[in-house]
Amino acid sequence: MSILEQIQIVLVETSLPANIGSTARAMKTMGLTQLRLVNPKQHTDEQAQALSAGAKDVLEQAQLFETFEQAIADCQLVIGTSARLRHLQNTLIEPRDCGELVVNRAKQGKVAIVFGRERVGLTNEELLKCHYHLNFPTNPDYGSLNLAMAVQLASYEIRMAYLQNNQQKQPLAENKNYPTSEALEHFFNHTERLYTELGFIRNEAVMLKLRRLYQRAELEENELNLLRGMLTAVEKAK
Amino acid sequence: MSILEQIQIVLVETSLPANIGSTARAMKTMGLTQLRLVNPKQHTDEQAQALSAGAKDVLEQAQLFETFEQAIADCQLVIGTSARLRHLQNTLIEPRDCGELVVNRAKQGKVAIVFGRERVGLTNEELLKCHYHLNFPTNPDYGSLNLAMAVQLASYEIRMAYLQNNQQKQPLAENKNYPTSEALEHFFNHTERLYTELGFIRNEAVMLKLRRLYQRAELEENELNLLRGMLTAVEKAK
Repeated sequence: MSILEQIQIVLVETSLPANIGSTARAMKTMGLTQLRLVNPKQHTDEQAQALSAGAKDVLEQAQLFETFEQAIADCQLVIGTSARLRHLQNTLIEPRDCGELVVNRAKQGKVAIVFGRERVGLTNEELLKCHYHLNFPTNPDYGSLNLAMAVQLASYEIRMAYLQNNQQKQPLAENKNYPTSEALEHFFNHTERLYTELGFIRNEAVMLKLRRLYQRAELEENELNLLRGMLTAVEKAK
Repeated sequence: MSILEQIQIVLVETSLPANIGSTARAMKTMGLTQLRLVNPKQHTDEQAQALSAGAKDVLEQAQLFETFEQAIADCQLVIGTSARLRHLQNTLIEPRDCGELVVNRAKQGKVAIVFGRERVGLTNEELLKCHYHLNFPTNPDYGSLNLAMAVQLASYEIRMAYLQNNQQKQPLAENKNYPTSEALEHFFNHTERLYTELGFIRNEAVMLKLRRLYQRAELEENELNLLRGMLTAVEKAK
């Protein structure tokens, strides 16, 4: 079983099927597929189907549970989210740390990230059953994240941690050609000669600026050829 | 003006008002307030109002523009998003780097992050006018992020970079000025006109390469002035 399949997104007593549909889509864009629903008002409807878009499989395969306890029973790590987290200072984590933690622990067993009811979140009793509490770094003046948006952010950080975890392999070789210093010097000399003749270059400052610009850009070979072609065109016209 | 107020979220030809409403909410939860709409099918409706929730102010204060060019004219850095990004290898950035870049550059001037149409994204012409191209690290089997979800992720990474920035001591102010998109367009148009007259430009490839080069280099204002001076010098000589 892959790491991502160990990660369970758990929605508790969701009111709006639309949020369940959007959650399915949000999960799948980040490679997550395991959705668990605790006693939703309604599992799915037409709007939920539409909003799930290409993630109808995630929506259809969602597992239904009657209680929060049953939904997290087989999980080794449970992370709860809620807006009312002030009393949970010691177990708060941010989405980025959450992503790393979840990916690490998913190597060993199932992990649940639990999202509460739209209006009132998780109960205190439910929060107490979570090992950690996920806190989004929202605007202090307005922190009301939509449920599926919160799932999107948590899933994104899981994917980032997952990709980083897989990144032990060598990156692919880049297929760019860069000019030699010599070719670059020819270009600078040609530019200086031409624009001095045109009366534009009267001191060293111009060439210093151009060098700085093109070196910073890490000019590629085909770009250098283009710029040299432009010089030749000007030379012919003058 | 605060850093976050310099950051413009630009939605181009959005079809569904619901997505505009959800975008407003997504932005505000992360502290962003400046929304620009390019020629939306409909600015707002009842559903958009409902979905914007506590961010009705962001929705109501959104600025309307007729064209993409007008919406980015006063911005010094423009980042475009699109799913079709394979041909833009050199200017791709991920959301995390995007957040850092945007926050840094917003200290000096306006920055735009541009999101395209729901089904077809941004046109190639629009993408060419962006300095960088934001690419979300989505599931290769299903990468279809909802528009407002994409805004949520980009806004989240901006907030993360913003919070980190505020935690650090103030670094020495960088003393660079960047040109507006409008000024850059003047330069590209001038170059195209002149080198077409000189017989050097005969197809689109030249301008595409030059745009790519100078956008990657993040041309500074004094460099742009220098390059424009060179064009004028050639014009006088021919």
